[in-house]
Amino acid sequence: MKIVTISYPNGRKYHADAQDSSVTARPPKTENVIFGKRGMRLEDAINESNEYYREHGSAVVYKKPTPVQIVHVDYPARSQAVIKEAYFRQPSTTDYNGVYQGYYLDFEAKQTKNKHSFPLKNYHQHQIDHFRRCLAQQGICFTLMQFADPNCVYLFPATALLRYWDDTTGRHSIPLKEVARVGYKIAVGFAPAIPYLDAVDALIAATHPQNSKGTIE
Amino acid sequence: MKIVTISYPNGRKYHADAQDSSVTARPPKTENVIFGKRGMRLEDAINESNEYYREHGSAVVYKKPTPVQIVHVDYPARSQAVIKEAYFRQPSTTDYNGVYQGYYLDFEAKQTKNKHSFPLKNYHQHQIDHFRRCLAQQGICFTLMQFADPNCVYLFPATALLRYWDDTTGRHSIPLKEVARVGYKIAVGFAPAIPYLDAVDALIAATHPQNSKGTIE
Repeated sequence: MKIVTISYPNGRKYHADAQDSSVTARPPKTENVIFGKRGMRLEDAINESNEYYREHGSAVVYKKPTPVQIVHVDYPARSQAVIKEAYFRQPSTTDYNGVYQGYYLDFEAKQTKNKHSFPLKNYHQHQIDHFRRCLAQQGICFTLMQFADPNCVYLFPATALLRYWDDTTGRHSIPLKEVARVGYKIAVGFAPAIPYLDAVDALIAATHPQNSKGTIE
Repeated sequence: MKIVTISYPNGRKYHADAQDSSVTARPPKTENVIFGKRGMRLEDAINESNEYYREHGSAVVYKKPTPVQIVHVDYPARSQAVIKEAYFRQPSTTDYNGVYQGYYLDFEAKQTKNKHSFPLKNYHQHQIDHFRRCLAQQGICFTLMQFADPNCVYLFPATALLRYWDDTTGRHSIPLKEVARVGYKIAVGFAPAIPYLDAVDALIAATHPQNSKGTIE
């Protein structure tokens, strides 16, 4: 593939528009805690697991693309379009969603190097708001929460997260003991790397005991 | 906001990588049929309707961001990151998904200037494959299908679309008469512009008569 090179920029200024308030100063933070012994980042391990689940017809879950505000695109002749100016935007939702046996799944992947607790500052307000809205629509909402040392991954339900988030007594993190008690430990494996659907089954059994849409909470 | 201008490109070539096959030659096609009498494009009208539904607690549905492969980012001092080289990627899924009363919704928005039929070439294979996978997981899958002249919008179920797609007798479009018979006409309005949840209710009533996850198809 040959890309025609073109001088850039041409003195053109970036014009603020209505969507500007959602443009972020920095790209999404790179997660640099590697995953388990296989050297995969948490995000890669989840993407690989989602692919495994899709290929096996178990679930259809994707990571959403990073939202980008595109300002300028070049169309070189006989070549592909090249985005020459764009900005990272603040997402409105969580990173992952999809469908599993009729259930809507919605989740975030988060990690910490802390040994004994999970800091709430890992969450943005928009993620909390989105969880709240999805729970109100009977979605299955959670975080895949990785503690790096020793490496272990939990499915932590969004309902429990919201209790901590709304706690006004000044607590700023969730003790690992609580994550282990309320959440579901995921037996990290090989194929898929993070078999989170087992934990989802447990969460559904706990929250949807009649397997009926009318009985949540 | 001030963006530091920097000469670009610096002679750097674009290197093919494993994800290259999914890079598209062109950006997503701009839909230039305006919507109804209000001058909105179909996509804008749906986004506005989704926002209305979210604000009223009726459903949580978003359009997915356009997937972009980012190659080069500049980080000007004390300013926001600027994406300087990126490419449009082929999406893997449909454009819209979300949750409504415990149901997973998944849909595309499509339009035609044809008066009497809807051409199947409006669909890509990956959209068809995605519909099939989501239907197998009991998702509620459909197209919001706009005929421009006279302007009308139908919810057309993915199950019916797949019958046409799989028809090997050489048919390349769906007659409007069939769209009207099998689909659900949407009474285009003001708030929301495209009240598609009414049609979703009708689709669920037809396909999930016991309102139970175990009874699909």
